[in-house]
Amino acid sequence: MTFFNLNARLEGDSHFVADLPLSAVRLMKDANYPWLLLIPRKPDLVEIIDLEEGDQLQLMREIALTSQVLRNVTDCEKLNVGALGNQVSQLHVHVIARFRDDAAWPGPIWGAAPFEGYEPERVDTLIDQFREAFSTETT
Amino acid sequence: MTFFNLNARLEGDSHFVADLPLSAVRLMKDANYPWLLLIPRKPDLVEIIDLEEGDQLQLMREIALTSQVLRNVTDCEKLNVGALGNQVSQLHVHVIARFRDDAAWPGPIWGAAPFEGYEPERVDTLIDQFREAFSTETT
Repeated sequence: MTFFNLNARLEGDSHFVADLPLSAVRLMKDANYPWLLLIPRKPDLVEIIDLEEGDQLQLMREIALTSQVLRNVTDCEKLNVGALGNQVSQLHVHVIARFRDDAAWPGPIWGAAPFEGYEPERVDTLIDQFREAFSTETT
Repeated sequence: MTFFNLNARLEGDSHFVADLPLSAVRLMKDANYPWLLLIPRKPDLVEIIDLEEGDQLQLMREIALTSQVLRNVTDCEKLNVGALGNQVSQLHVHVIARFRDDAAWPGPIWGAAPFEGYEPERVDTLIDQFREAFSTETT
């Protein structure tokens, strides 16, 4: 039997926010964009179609919930949702808040701007806001 | 009452492949990558969360089906799935076949390489292969 292991690079690049029924939600450490990851907690996943059909639908519910939470907290102009995995193959879905004045607009964010760290206080506040929004949206 | 209208840029950049229950499937004219679009045929959609919940789940079914078809036809290394919409706001989901020797690997494809047209015969053959694969996968 194989167990779920979070890829070391995904772990190092992000902070834990919450566990949804299928996926862990994590906040990317790059302060250029409010940027969440959904990582289904099942072993050996690379593609969305590696999930069983019921889990694919649950992933969509969690993408929708995370999109709503991200928009509520950030009041963003646009949401970007993507599952790429060309560099880190473990299945992860990006849910990113975009603004017309952000570092990559209107292009995609991946590889666009140098990493920028959060102020420690800012990241704690943001994680708290996300946790509160997830608990409001799911109750 | 508002009706669905396909955005002129999405239409001009792609060829019709098939209609699924929710979405039109179209092939992007850029020959750098086998690249399909799913465009839900409902008016006034920008974000995935603008869809009703049942349609969100149907979109995931169609993403999975399109992913399977694309992989079957192209034998690709990786699938990339994304809903960005920073430039064309009408909701559309990219499903792209990626290869280690493609023009943008391992980066995202958007904005990465100059547009390259298909040979007319090649595009006809590819569309036929996709249509056959959709009909095989759904029966």
